[in-house]
Amino acid sequence: MEPDKLNKEQDQNSWAVNAWTLLSKLRDQSPLIQCITNFVSMDLMANTLLSAGASPAMIHSIEEIQDFTPHIHALCINVGTLSPAWLPAMREAAQVAYKAGKPWVLDPVAAGASCFRLKACLELVGLKPSVIRGNGSEIIALSKASIGATKGVDSSHESMDAMEAAKSLAQSSGAVVAVSGAVDIITDGHRVVGAHNGVSMMQKITATGCAVTALIAAFVAVDPLHAFEATASALSIFGIAGEMGMAMAKGPASLRMHLIDSVYNLDQAAVSSRLKVTSL
Amino acid sequence: MEPDKLNKEQDQNSWAVNAWTLLSKLRDQSPLIQCITNFVSMDLMANTLLSAGASPAMIHSIEEIQDFTPHIHALCINVGTLSPAWLPAMREAAQVAYKAGKPWVLDPVAAGASCFRLKACLELVGLKPSVIRGNGSEIIALSKASIGATKGVDSSHESMDAMEAAKSLAQSSGAVVAVSGAVDIITDGHRVVGAHNGVSMMQKITATGCAVTALIAAFVAVDPLHAFEATASALSIFGIAGEMGMAMAKGPASLRMHLIDSVYNLDQAAVSSRLKVTSL
Amino acid sequence: MEPDKLNKEQDQNSWAVNAWTLLSKLRDQSPLIQCITNFVSMDLMANTLLSAGASPAMIHSIEEIQDFTPHIHALCINVGTLSPAWLPAMREAAQVAYKAGKPWVLDPVAAGASCFRLKACLELVGLKPSVIRGNGSEIIALSKASIGATKGVDSSHESMDAMEAAKSLAQSSGAVVAVSGAVDIITDGHRVVGAHNGVSMMQKITATGCAVTALIAAFVAVDPLHAFEATASALSIFGIAGEMGMAMAKGPASLRMHLIDSVYNLDQAAVSSRLKVTSL
Repeated sequence: MEPDKLNKEQDQNSWAVNAWTLLSKLRDQSPLIQCITNFVSMDLMANTLLSAGASPAMIHSIEEIQDFTPHIHALCINVGTLSPAWLPAMREAAQVAYKAGKPWVLDPVAAGASCFRLKACLELVGLKPSVIRGNGSEIIALSKASIGATKGVDSSHESMDAMEAAKSLAQSSGAVVAVSGAVDIITDGHRVVGAHNGVSMMQKITATGCAVTALIAAFVAVDPLHAFEATASALSIFGIAGEMGMAMAKGPASLRMHLIDSVYNLDQAAVSSRLKVTSL
Repeated sequence: MEPDKLNKEQDQNSWAVNAWTLLSKLRDQSPLIQCITNFVSMDLMANTLLSAGASPAMIHSIEEIQDFTPHIHALCINVGTLSPAWLPAMREAAQVAYKAGKPWVLDPVAAGASCFRLKACLELVGLKPSVIRGNGSEIIALSKASIGATKGVDSSHESMDAMEAAKSLAQSSGAVVAVSGAVDIITDGHRVVGAHNGVSMMQKITATGCAVTALIAAFVAVDPLHAFEATASALSIFGIAGEMGMAMAKGPASLRMHLIDSVYNLDQAAVSSRLKVTSL
Repeated sequence: MEPDKLNKEQDQNSWAVNAWTLLSKLRDQSPLIQCITNFVSMDLMANTLLSAGASPAMIHSIEEIQDFTPHIHALCINVGTLSPAWLPAMREAAQVAYKAGKPWVLDPVAAGASCFRLKACLELVGLKPSVIRGNGSEIIALSKASIGATKGVDSSHESMDAMEAAKSLAQSSGAVVAVSGAVDIITDGHRVVGAHNGVSMMQKITATGCAVTALIAAFVAVDPLHAFEATASALSIFGIAGEMGMAMAKGPASLRMHLIDSVYNLDQAAVSSRLKVTSL
């Protein structure tokens, strides 16, 4: 075997070992993940976290942040159905989590859909998230601080086009940035990898993007010092579960069911044989 | 064949051709549908729109209407879990959509359940919706402007009883009015047709009514000049998907899954052989 | 057969007969159940009520309570995603229901997660609920009026440990208290029974606890004078449906589907052969 090919296989293998180790930790430790998220995604997000072994808590009132947030293991903030009344709690939760040394993850849904939303997202980006995950349009909107790039909540940019925007956003924010697409891109501003697992029909299920962001929070919770690897691992695990679900699905609704069942049932053999992360 | 029977078959056939044409357009164009809707229905509504080929956006803050609503292709307003805080955005979105020439569709959930709700619904009816879809009790409450006819969110009137109320409401509002029931009734105040597809177990799944209202918005988005035909087509397509789902279902939850899968997989043969719309 | 064993079998049989009678009444009467509940649970709660034969109404605005609540058959209040804006309507709905002689049921989700939440729950406990259902941590937090016992929304106490707290809370509040766990405990402060049906994977589905609280409300609605028996019956029926669903499930998401289908399809033979309620 040529040395280059061998190296790639060894790399692949070490990504798979790491992803499996993190999933096993997650199942063992059942980290408490606070989610301040949109109304559409709450059900799928909570079920995704439960099926992966985490303990979700959808607690969003500002009155509760000081008592509750210090006890969590990670925080997920998602602006999908944003309204001004929810922003102060998002801000405070992010600050309390950061001060307590707990990782937090931002999902800037439809960041470019309005000035109000863009401004809110940019403000949250400034509160030191560990990870930001969005689609191409959202990451470009954040990176350029401009509206108009988003078609509602679905992306009108291919993720590869968003690579430069992601690197730039990672460098300016200090966060790991992930861009969902046919190939997911993960960057810390220097390293860039692609996560290749997943199936296109997952985009026909609402809130799969939100759900994987919450899963990233759970993975980072069990390995907070390696947010880059944890993010790529969570995206890969969710993608693999999607592939396995797709083998049984007859459409988007049955895929949704089989996807969650597959997250719950995922074993080391499936992770080893399917995971594909490459340097970009 | 007798001329009368022949005419009916030709009519049936032309309804089926039209419904299939609209569904094909919807899958091609993927119109952006803004939904300001209740908390219960968001998941099913978004998944119904995605499975049909549309792009849903659950954006409800008044701060975002001016930036976002001009870019949509249709708007769906549903008052299911209404609170005073949400009303101004509903009002403004309806006005912005109307001024921008974008169709909007109203679902007056439980219109007669309280004075607050009835007044809000009547005000929205005055903002020129293209279509109003409700159950018999809701349409009667709106038409008579009186509360008390509704048993919660489920109808206590057969849809046939509501035909006169629907015609009257269509004439006074200028909207196409659809009444869900064993046979769905669709009227523009002059023409009246019945859409016969569907199965009764769909009423045992929460938010199927909300979901089909959103589907109507998507159909009207791709044929805004023919809201009457688009409404009957959307109701028929959803009903056919329900029939096909029912063949695989073992209860309401599996029907819900197979229904959405069937919307995604629906082909011309199923539409041609199953669609049944009749003049009433 | 020994007299003692015979007595136990007769007891078991009378519990099964009673649970089946109540479920049959529920299917016949289709009671209207108002739910003021959290965003995560709305879909599953509404679908659970519909599959059992009840008519759910998610109406939470304070503007609607005076018009609507007098017409309901029971009320379910769940504080899962509590915010200060929702509390006045919860309070008013509880008061209107109580004055109108309608039973109401409280689900004190994560009662110990914050001072704000605990105070709100204690206030609601004072408004004369017919039934309070929670997990061990929640019931202990209410009984001791102290925070910190809860790990998010999942329990960190075994239900058996919570028995004394439940009895004490039942005596002080006048409510029947149910504690979910491996064995569910039901007490009116004097009598204590255990409901043994159910499977552990139900805890991997979000909002199953919320859903069974709503089902308790529906059972109490059809037998308001026997809240103790109705509560044990509802917990048993949901648990039996879970066992039957588990026989078909491949993971939490398919269990969720089969669980709801099973509630819909449950027959007398399954209730007779499976129900297990014991004196504790």
